[in-house]
Amino acid sequence: VAGIGDDAAVLAPERGTVDVVTVDSQIEDIHFRRAWTVPRDIGHKAFHVCVSDLAAMGATPRAVLLSLALPPSLPLAEFDGILDGFLDAAAAVRTPLVGGNITRSPGPIVIDVTAIGAARPRRLLRRSGARAGDQLYVTGSVGGAAAGLGWLAAGHEPVTLDEDGRACLDRYARPEARLRCGWIIARTGAARACVDLSDGLADAARQIAEASGLGVVIEADRVPVHAGARAWAEATGRDPVVAAVAGGDDYELLFAVASRRTRMFEAAARRCRGLAVTHVGRLTADEGAWLDRHGRQEPLPQGFVHY
Amino acid sequence: VAGIGDDAAVLAPERGTVDVVTVDSQIEDIHFRRAWTVPRDIGHKAFHVCVSDLAAMGATPRAVLLSLALPPSLPLAEFDGILDGFLDAAAAVRTPLVGGNITRSPGPIVIDVTAIGAARPRRLLRRSGARAGDQLYVTGSVGGAAAGLGWLAAGHEPVTLDEDGRACLDRYARPEARLRCGWIIARTGAARACVDLSDGLADAARQIAEASGLGVVIEADRVPVHAGARAWAEATGRDPVVAAVAGGDDYELLFAVASRRTRMFEAAARRCRGLAVTHVGRLTADEGAWLDRHGRQEPLPQGFVHY
Repeated sequence: VAGIGDDAAVLAPERGTVDVVTVDSQIEDIHFRRAWTVPRDIGHKAFHVCVSDLAAMGATPRAVLLSLALPPSLPLAEFDGILDGFLDAAAAVRTPLVGGNITRSPGPIVIDVTAIGAARPRRLLRRSGARAGDQLYVTGSVGGAAAGLGWLAAGHEPVTLDEDGRACLDRYARPEARLRCGWIIARTGAARACVDLSDGLADAARQIAEASGLGVVIEADRVPVHAGARAWAEATGRDPVVAAVAGGDDYELLFAVASRRTRMFEAAARRCRGLAVTHVGRLTADEGAWLDRHGRQEPLPQGFVHY
Repeated sequence: VAGIGDDAAVLAPERGTVDVVTVDSQIEDIHFRRAWTVPRDIGHKAFHVCVSDLAAMGATPRAVLLSLALPPSLPLAEFDGILDGFLDAAAAVRTPLVGGNITRSPGPIVIDVTAIGAARPRRLLRRSGARAGDQLYVTGSVGGAAAGLGWLAAGHEPVTLDEDGRACLDRYARPEARLRCGWIIARTGAARACVDLSDGLADAARQIAEASGLGVVIEADRVPVHAGARAWAEATGRDPVVAAVAGGDDYELLFAVASRRTRMFEAAARRCRGLAVTHVGRLTADEGAWLDRHGRQEPLPQGFVHY
């Protein structure tokens, strides 16, 4: 109804929906470095990291608010770049920026994004609600963003990497929240639970399991490891699956699906335009989180920890 | 419906209302100093500064989200204090904390608060919508918070000040958003426009005037200058009215009221429990912002500028 320019923004409700709200921070030198990410990508990522939480609920974004704390030394062109990257990302999914504020920071750039979405209450994808025997599916591929961060931390730039390596840099710098896929799966009612992979597949699997009072098994052979993540793991002497499931910043979605609904789920997932959705494991009545390699189970790695 | 613990919070809509959303930041060494404000008051103020924007729209808070960036050196007791102050302030107006995040800050404490409120769409108090000849009313008193900040910056502590001075410290540290009064006035439909005084009365008056394409006259004799603000202005050799209208951080409300509705407005304002509501000026067809002293007009001071 009314956006920027009044004390607060006003949003008319959508009939039959509930509000889904979330807030996320991107802080310079914690979540991004200006030396590693161009301003446009910082803005792009701040938007997608936040709305990824809406995707994981099966909600459609209605509006975002942006709160920026900026050091006075920040060049105007960098501010413009951050804002443009944010606004372009929002426009691409038809989400208006309805409010926010800009303030001075005595330290790092701080980007806080609040997203407000809408969802049909009976179609909400929660974290809990999975049952023993449910099958786990993940969108896209995993480990690419962590590999991109790894290449950057090792001093690499795009020109020093092959195509897969450059794709990892892009995964890290420009994640895409799986809004359309979350919405399609929510609408079909084929999934019982969902989370996003902000802190990695291992962490996401634990979250669904713990919220539902269950255990989880991920099958190593089924994990869709990003091709560039495999190369990075080999270059650094790590197991590619362990590195991929422990790596953060992927923003894929992990779904728990009742066994008798997997065919319906897979049919719906085929409608997620060009996005693979892969069966990676299952939830179990026995607690614990395991990585299965041809029947031999080892502990599932911990997820990526920010703080 | 669902709060903290899922990817995002879910709020059921209230029938016949629109969502009113706003976000505000409090940043260490910009908006507060840990040497000057106890942790509980930092949390209290972060809540009230944000919901003051809802008060100015005539909206009732439904939920808040809290995003904290904290330096690792912050003592746990100070973190607890900030959080307790925030939660107590929210509980006092029955507003649940439904989501948020905590992250590490490599610099200052950053507190971002998002507030979601509800309002009847036809009762919203906007910034624009005032007309020439409308009368301006302000709640409470002005200049107290700026005087409190002035005393702190001059090295004063409560024991070195009289009762009025201590009241100014309290105004600065523990503002109270005028939620009840905003809601009462909105419900009666007696006001045409409203803003809060986050950056002072002079700034608020300009905002209503500019949003409505009008000019404004504030009558110096009518301005309800806080008693402690008067003492502070005298101690620093400033004109008390100029200092009070230019001082920020008051979080009172300024209403524009059609001349033929002032009696109805004043009757409604008497229901704002113990909160004075004072006639301070009027909107004019001629643009410009003036302070009137017995018929002699001088330019209205600029408001407090954060950035």
